[in-house]
Amino acid sequence: MAAYLLEASIGSRRLSDYRTTPRQADRGVPAIPNITIKMAKTKVVVTRQLIAEAQKLLDARKGELEIVQWQSEKPCERSWLLENVKGASGILVMLTDKVDEGLLEAAGPQLNTIASFSVGTDHVDRDALKKRNIRLGYTPTCLTDAVADLTIMLTLMAQRRGAECIAKVTRGEWPQMPWHPLLMTGPQIRGSTVGFIGFGRIAQASLQRLLPFGIKRVIYLTSKPGQPVKEDHFGLLKSATITIQSATSTDQVAKESDVVIVGCALTPATKHLISTDFFAKMKKLAVIVNIARGPIIDTEALVKALDEKRIFGAGLDVIENEPNITADHPILKQPRAVLVPHIGSATIETREQMATESVKNLLAGLEGERMINELEL
Amino acid sequence: MAAYLLEASIGSRRLSDYRTTPRQADRGVPAIPNITIKMAKTKVVVTRQLIAEAQKLLDARKGELEIVQWQSEKPCERSWLLENVKGASGILVMLTDKVDEGLLEAAGPQLNTIASFSVGTDHVDRDALKKRNIRLGYTPTCLTDAVADLTIMLTLMAQRRGAECIAKVTRGEWPQMPWHPLLMTGPQIRGSTVGFIGFGRIAQASLQRLLPFGIKRVIYLTSKPGQPVKEDHFGLLKSATITIQSATSTDQVAKESDVVIVGCALTPATKHLISTDFFAKMKKLAVIVNIARGPIIDTEALVKALDEKRIFGAGLDVIENEPNITADHPILKQPRAVLVPHIGSATIETREQMATESVKNLLAGLEGERMINELEL
Repeated sequence: MAAYLLEASIGSRRLSDYRTTPRQADRGVPAIPNITIKMAKTKVVVTRQLIAEAQKLLDARKGELEIVQWQSEKPCERSWLLENVKGASGILVMLTDKVDEGLLEAAGPQLNTIASFSVGTDHVDRDALKKRNIRLGYTPTCLTDAVADLTIMLTLMAQRRGAECIAKVTRGEWPQMPWHPLLMTGPQIRGSTVGFIGFGRIAQASLQRLLPFGIKRVIYLTSKPGQPVKEDHFGLLKSATITIQSATSTDQVAKESDVVIVGCALTPATKHLISTDFFAKMKKLAVIVNIARGPIIDTEALVKALDEKRIFGAGLDVIENEPNITADHPILKQPRAVLVPHIGSATIETREQMATESVKNLLAGLEGERMINELEL
Repeated sequence: MAAYLLEASIGSRRLSDYRTTPRQADRGVPAIPNITIKMAKTKVVVTRQLIAEAQKLLDARKGELEIVQWQSEKPCERSWLLENVKGASGILVMLTDKVDEGLLEAAGPQLNTIASFSVGTDHVDRDALKKRNIRLGYTPTCLTDAVADLTIMLTLMAQRRGAECIAKVTRGEWPQMPWHPLLMTGPQIRGSTVGFIGFGRIAQASLQRLLPFGIKRVIYLTSKPGQPVKEDHFGLLKSATITIQSATSTDQVAKESDVVIVGCALTPATKHLISTDFFAKMKKLAVIVNIARGPIIDTEALVKALDEKRIFGAGLDVIENEPNITADHPILKQPRAVLVPHIGSATIETREQMATESVKNLLAGLEGERMINELEL
């Protein structure tokens, strides 16, 4: 339905002026020859084959759009992209495609839309887009559930020694693990203080899930320490049955939290925000969870904190220099570190929705319509 | 405080009749000679060194009790137990200690209390206890939180491919995992139907935690299919905002659930309740979680279901023949199976509380007082 509505116009041209509508065809009104349509085609470049529904949505526009699409399962090659982007009005990109001056130059001045299949936009040079009046669509909202679910999984795995348990069993060590009362025990979440670094939509969705586990208190740090957060996405603050308060400093979060959840954006101010000093102030039985961006945590400091048992455990969906994490990486030597390969949004439902929304953002950009999610530049 | 109150009597003898109370001592009333106390000592056998608080509680009774305690970190040897139990009035046992006719015979007719440091009592021959009028204490309530927390961890890990993710990263495969939209995706929990096999306290506590994840519907199977469950431990049924209904058959749970959580007791009727037939009826994207007892699931059938991708994944805290799971066990070859070494109650807080409650049950049994949790035989 939405796809049909979007078909009314492409770019600044109203294609319906040139096309035969079904009703005209019924009445025997002759169609405008194909050549007219071809001349009006708007070029778009897509750096991936998309999931079924989204691909269908895009393919339905083949009559009006010249769609150039990367065909392999591997990430799109930069040289291919630079070559094919020439003359494109819109580009649908993945997290792995750098959108920079070079790409925009190669495309040319008609480029008006970037639609990114991602929640983050670190791969996009926003200033370069702004300078050229290019709109940027992205897909931040539909992955809230998937990332919040993973946050809970990583929190529990960090506390309950998930990776260590699996490793022991896989190595066949279970028969040699004599049961004793403190065997493989970890801290319990009931009664704990949870500290959020960054308290946006995903952090608040995670908190919503943590409440029935019996957490006692929440502190959160935003870019304005001590100030109450503006957006109460799920009404948790309004109807709070436990204390939820703004932290006055990073130190306070380190000192008072039993669980620290990192969910802020990566900026020059948050890079290595969590380092040796932070870990030194954490409780010995506390765990840290990173669902945001790798570089917010200083990996070397984290490895040291785990190695010296200054903290109990860590649950990481992201890490500095990902995906270049080889088997000899020091974090993999820490039994109390859980590291998964950036699967925050990796649910079937979310990825389908992200793909569909990316296509809709692309089409809306070309048509000068409202995107589902557009980043203000 | 509780420990002081419990000191009033030991067994059927009121020791306070023979002892000097602090007040008598103040008034210079002479104490009964030590020899009297020694003769009155009641023997207890404890098959473990206990966690600090519980050990302290027990040691505080050394004046009145002859405490024979297994000293090693390894599980108590059967031969040691049979030898030392002679003349004991109470035994504090772990899951690993079989309480059967042989042990009761070896102890002798004065035995009146078994205090088990466990939620399950499979290791205890209840009929043999009943015949001899021996009371059985256990510790089922204090681990509800710990097991319910783990249930959520295993559910999310089964859906989000937790073990598979960790294995890939650990083997250094992340750099060679080209990103594509369905890479490492799993089903999302929002909107799902959750089916419980067994709907007691732990299952209900798990449901309480699952609600904010956006599950849509709950069906539960009890020993009385179709009948509403009697105990609404957390008021979830009374204040339900989603459908929570009693399933009419095992088949219904298999067919309609996106997540199956096994939380029933192991009985002849539930042994291999989940087998080939059950897996054949499950949805392809469904996951199964076992937090109860291994033999409820037919392991061979589970391995086959995973191998043939009839179901999406499994999260297991327990498995048949545990802990004898060697590295070549077929379940460990299934990337979508998560197996942890029976850590349901393995939180520091829970184990401390279980230890303390076991000691209190032991003392209450000896004294003919009310236990914190006593199993009706």
